[in-house]
Amino acid sequence: MSSSFGRLFVVTTFGESHGPAVGVVVDGMPPGVPVEAGEIQRELDRRRPGQSALTTQRSEADRVEILSGVFEGVSLGTPIAMLVRNTDARSKDYDALKDVFRPGHADYSYMAKYGLRDHRGGGRSSGRETVGRVAGGALARGALAQIGVKIVGGTVQVGEVKAMRRDWSVTEKNPVRCPDAMAARGMAEVILAARDQKDSVGGVVEVVAQGVPAGWGDPTMTKLDAMLGMAMLSIPATKGVEIGGGFGMCALTGSKTNDVFDGKKYLTNFAGGISGGISNGAEIVVRVAVRPATSIGKPQQAATKRGRTTTIAIEGRHDPCICPRVVPVAEAMMCLTLMDAWLRQRALRGREK
Amino acid sequence: MSSSFGRLFVVTTFGESHGPAVGVVVDGMPPGVPVEAGEIQRELDRRRPGQSALTTQRSEADRVEILSGVFEGVSLGTPIAMLVRNTDARSKDYDALKDVFRPGHADYSYMAKYGLRDHRGGGRSSGRETVGRVAGGALARGALAQIGVKIVGGTVQVGEVKAMRRDWSVTEKNPVRCPDAMAARGMAEVILAARDQKDSVGGVVEVVAQGVPAGWGDPTMTKLDAMLGMAMLSIPATKGVEIGGGFGMCALTGSKTNDVFDGKKYLTNFAGGISGGISNGAEIVVRVAVRPATSIGKPQQAATKRGRTTTIAIEGRHDPCICPRVVPVAEAMMCLTLMDAWLRQRALRGREK
Amino acid sequence: MSSSFGRLFVVTTFGESHGPAVGVVVDGMPPGVPVEAGEIQRELDRRRPGQSALTTQRSEADRVEILSGVFEGVSLGTPIAMLVRNTDARSKDYDALKDVFRPGHADYSYMAKYGLRDHRGGGRSSGRETVGRVAGGALARGALAQIGVKIVGGTVQVGEVKAMRRDWSVTEKNPVRCPDAMAARGMAEVILAARDQKDSVGGVVEVVAQGVPAGWGDPTMTKLDAMLGMAMLSIPATKGVEIGGGFGMCALTGSKTNDVFDGKKYLTNFAGGISGGISNGAEIVVRVAVRPATSIGKPQQAATKRGRTTTIAIEGRHDPCICPRVVPVAEAMMCLTLMDAWLRQRALRGREK
Amino acid sequence: MSSSFGRLFVVTTFGESHGPAVGVVVDGMPPGVPVEAGEIQRELDRRRPGQSALTTQRSEADRVEILSGVFEGVSLGTPIAMLVRNTDARSKDYDALKDVFRPGHADYSYMAKYGLRDHRGGGRSSGRETVGRVAGGALARGALAQIGVKIVGGTVQVGEVKAMRRDWSVTEKNPVRCPDAMAARGMAEVILAARDQKDSVGGVVEVVAQGVPAGWGDPTMTKLDAMLGMAMLSIPATKGVEIGGGFGMCALTGSKTNDVFDGKKYLTNFAGGISGGISNGAEIVVRVAVRPATSIGKPQQAATKRGRTTTIAIEGRHDPCICPRVVPVAEAMMCLTLMDAWLRQRALRGREK
Repeated sequence: MSSSFGRLFVVTTFGESHGPAVGVVVDGMPPGVPVEAGEIQRELDRRRPGQSALTTQRSEADRVEILSGVFEGVSLGTPIAMLVRNTDARSKDYDALKDVFRPGHADYSYMAKYGLRDHRGGGRSSGRETVGRVAGGALARGALAQIGVKIVGGTVQVGEVKAMRRDWSVTEKNPVRCPDAMAARGMAEVILAARDQKDSVGGVVEVVAQGVPAGWGDPTMTKLDAMLGMAMLSIPATKGVEIGGGFGMCALTGSKTNDVFDGKKYLTNFAGGISGGISNGAEIVVRVAVRPATSIGKPQQAATKRGRTTTIAIEGRHDPCICPRVVPVAEAMMCLTLMDAWLRQRALRGREK
Repeated sequence: MSSSFGRLFVVTTFGESHGPAVGVVVDGMPPGVPVEAGEIQRELDRRRPGQSALTTQRSEADRVEILSGVFEGVSLGTPIAMLVRNTDARSKDYDALKDVFRPGHADYSYMAKYGLRDHRGGGRSSGRETVGRVAGGALARGALAQIGVKIVGGTVQVGEVKAMRRDWSVTEKNPVRCPDAMAARGMAEVILAARDQKDSVGGVVEVVAQGVPAGWGDPTMTKLDAMLGMAMLSIPATKGVEIGGGFGMCALTGSKTNDVFDGKKYLTNFAGGISGGISNGAEIVVRVAVRPATSIGKPQQAATKRGRTTTIAIEGRHDPCICPRVVPVAEAMMCLTLMDAWLRQRALRGREK
Repeated sequence: MSSSFGRLFVVTTFGESHGPAVGVVVDGMPPGVPVEAGEIQRELDRRRPGQSALTTQRSEADRVEILSGVFEGVSLGTPIAMLVRNTDARSKDYDALKDVFRPGHADYSYMAKYGLRDHRGGGRSSGRETVGRVAGGALARGALAQIGVKIVGGTVQVGEVKAMRRDWSVTEKNPVRCPDAMAARGMAEVILAARDQKDSVGGVVEVVAQGVPAGWGDPTMTKLDAMLGMAMLSIPATKGVEIGGGFGMCALTGSKTNDVFDGKKYLTNFAGGISGGISNGAEIVVRVAVRPATSIGKPQQAATKRGRTTTIAIEGRHDPCICPRVVPVAEAMMCLTLMDAWLRQRALRGREK
Repeated sequence: MSSSFGRLFVVTTFGESHGPAVGVVVDGMPPGVPVEAGEIQRELDRRRPGQSALTTQRSEADRVEILSGVFEGVSLGTPIAMLVRNTDARSKDYDALKDVFRPGHADYSYMAKYGLRDHRGGGRSSGRETVGRVAGGALARGALAQIGVKIVGGTVQVGEVKAMRRDWSVTEKNPVRCPDAMAARGMAEVILAARDQKDSVGGVVEVVAQGVPAGWGDPTMTKLDAMLGMAMLSIPATKGVEIGGGFGMCALTGSKTNDVFDGKKYLTNFAGGISGGISNGAEIVVRVAVRPATSIGKPQQAATKRGRTTTIAIEGRHDPCICPRVVPVAEAMMCLTLMDAWLRQRALRGREK
């Protein structure tokens, strides 16, 4: 249950960073939806390490294999299992860390929870788990595209550099995945500076869903905001999420933040496309706070399993800023959340939309 | 399913604002836990309207009746149903709004979802639904208290006035529920000013859990951060949530935000008590962005069901700032989230903690 | 979670036999479905005690109150909570049983599970819990009727007397609720004979769903057979369930039991309307084994909480055969199971049927 | 959701009969439990085809690969994914059946549900799906063994031949898996006679759990009987389930079927080890009705996709009686059901048992 997301479109991931494989089972895909391995692979390629100087140099091909649920190019309506083998698993790199709780990592809390752990690369708590989410998200993206729903995303803040524009056509053209080509350069500089100091830096990722019809979501516990909150805060290294105006609205007044609706569409979007937990037809806008990566080369104080203190420097290949790689994951979680809400609305109303 | 929260400690609320009653069924309470109606009532009294000049003057006694699951003062281990009758339901106040989509409200999205609605006071989308959450949360609070877990909360920002201190002993002594008595006065002024202008103002609510042992939560989809994100963003009028350092960490570096652990406890708490989705023994700290209340007396442009525009002023008794009343609700959601994580950890490890 | 049934149409019951009330919350009802309290009441009246000489003389009006989710005569799409007060709760009758584990009852297992119990009338394990199921089932029945699905049921065996006909129009005209008026008389005699001996007798209840379109259900874990199995075996005092040919097929051959399908409809129905877990368009036929009621006036050996043996005779008002009262409950569970399968199919295919 | 079983110990299977692979993800395994691939393989070997003249001659090695969740020989507490490649998938055998709805099979209902299907060998509705259940069940069996719970099972009826004894030590020594060596011979004769006639025959499988402590299960919707009912009726080709005395109790009286409890243990077991939905400490006894296999070589009338009638004989390698191969699957489902109930009880009471 703890590795599953969704109620009607249920995505269950599995796999440790340095075990045989990572993967996902997607249960609830409607039948007859075209499934192209190439599109899934493209999303995995966006997520995989080694894409630019800004990301970790760990290099894995991350080839996806579809094990079930697809026949003659379309979904069968049965579970779709997908598998990615771990190939570049240099477990030896982690031997020195076996008895040390790395600062900022989940090593200590994980040990407190389970009483044991796979120390190699974080095991289950590794960002590598997101491979399954991205593969599952690609399926949802394909299904949503058929009714005109499109999901885009990008890095909108790194350190103190903020994107001033939202030109989603440029995000894949710069290594930061920033929708503001100008700001992207400044962000890259901040990231490289952190890398040179064997440090890391945080940022903000924004994801937007276009074309979502009004009526998806629920009014109480499973508000669309709530499910997006769960979705985004389940991504490793995220520590905040906001919808539409978010925290910025706190200092404003109702007369300013009540979106103006002219009977057909919203003229402002402080609600981020969600009113009372239900989509209102405007763009759904979510921003996610990404903390600075916890694996840094700089020497830090740490504790050992026996409770002694020591100093460690996390050697190896790490991301100085994980925002560029969080982008496809956050998009995937948006896809999964919307897919689930869509199916639920079909159950409730018995119609296509 | 859409009105339930939790997997092992399942809370299902029901009720419309102006229907016969609101209430909750709590399924999963362990047997033998003392249940005092007085304690549940105290939490409901904190939530109910009419407590001060800062809140709505709608006045309901909100007397809770326990219908099941409690015998001779303790829980039976069976579902605990609780009921609060709606007594001050002046439905007539809402007749004028029957065919108008109020700005900022869920009227339009709700109609798009269901095709019909109970227009009286927002029906199911009313904040009144939180009565059930608070009653359920009080049960969880009592159970958690038995193992030394304590939940506190308060308003830490209103408009641009921020609390500088966290003295939880003073929150119930000022009408804003601010943990900084000094700041509370400034906040109250901001709220009264908004009220005088027939407007509303937003703010931030913070909730803290003390005494949570390390090991609660999960490493992937149901991270403790994720469940808290879902919990908080399911509260009406919330548009953001952050854990520990939250959005503020984005502009910092890893060497700064990696919490220092001396083998026994954390010396800093950027992680907000949760590492890799699992509690790490430090205080769990969550902040929630509360938008300005959408019901304001100021005339606003609105659309009718027929797609025409009109101007409306929401008359009646409304909260100029809902933060003080969100505090007990956010605390309740923290209680529910932790209770569920606790029971799950008991299932996994088979021990009391 | 343990008091809920269904995934998309979720029914959660609450209440102890001798507590303040029993009831139900139904979450997942589509909006716009007519809800008449009278129809719900009629089903409750079929279930309630005291209907004839064949059933217990405990007499409760069992008046249902709808607390939420219904507005101007139709469902809102929000949770529908319903309440029935316990009025004839003669708790004193049970004082003598406080420290005795009644033979055949759940007293011992319940104590082993919870460590405490409400001993009055079985508390939560009482058949009175089914009030909530019947109320919830009535809602599902109303919704299903709109697309031509009809559920009927009756007692088809008592002791060794079996119904030879299935004339569903006569079931409400005899106190056994038998679809064979002739057999009904024999059954009544068996029941009265058992009553006179302060004993009880078992039987079989059959429930049939007519008009279910092909395509409801699932091929693996949540086969329609499986969900019906869960549904029926969750009814108190049931110890077996079979679909279509059931156990009788075990002694036959495949060439005999493979139903003949002429391209439009099935000419035989050994499958009971379900092929591979999915409805095939034929009548869905389920039979439920009902054990002899465990509460009997005859003196029996029993054990006390302290592990000593004693002899008890269960005084009070009990059913010598509970089949007539299981009929409306089994029908309700069929309604709930089909409702859930229907909504799930709508989610999968996005169409009305 | 439709391919998952369990609430705390969640088993999700995937795979089509003639796709690349079948498999399972098990989420909820407590950490630190020894996991031996050899034990999982042994259970798969019991299930796999080609074991004797009584079963299908399709021959697949069914080698299991553990993909995640196990480290240094023990469970990590994270999802355990297991994979079995399909190797002997002679898809050509099925080309002739592409446009025909085979009698007794799910072809028509499946097409009605999904609008398309993988016709090769039944696709998802094939018994091959149970590979994942057996692998998951083997994990549960290992965990349960650590607290002294043991699950056994066997074929207790074939055609009209019934087992008179329950000697579980002989079940693996005869190809029918019958606990009565004498009856096993008669059963084998019945099966071979059916095979010679290109027909098939049904039977009954019994599964028994020994050593289950009192207190597992729930009093209402998720009664242990109910979950076992769901578990067993989710197995392909099953059409009935009974607990303890089952249908046989219907013709008896309460004074006979109320089990005698002497304060320590039960002297009779009409309840099949479950009272009021909760285990009572006696052996848990479940019987499952297995219909005659639907794939037979005898010519039968069938309908085509276009609604015409035709005659077909299902050529290929099929089981004349699937009871021997249902035994390990039914045992696996018992293991899964009990594992889930055990974890739930740990959550409720916070203790090991």
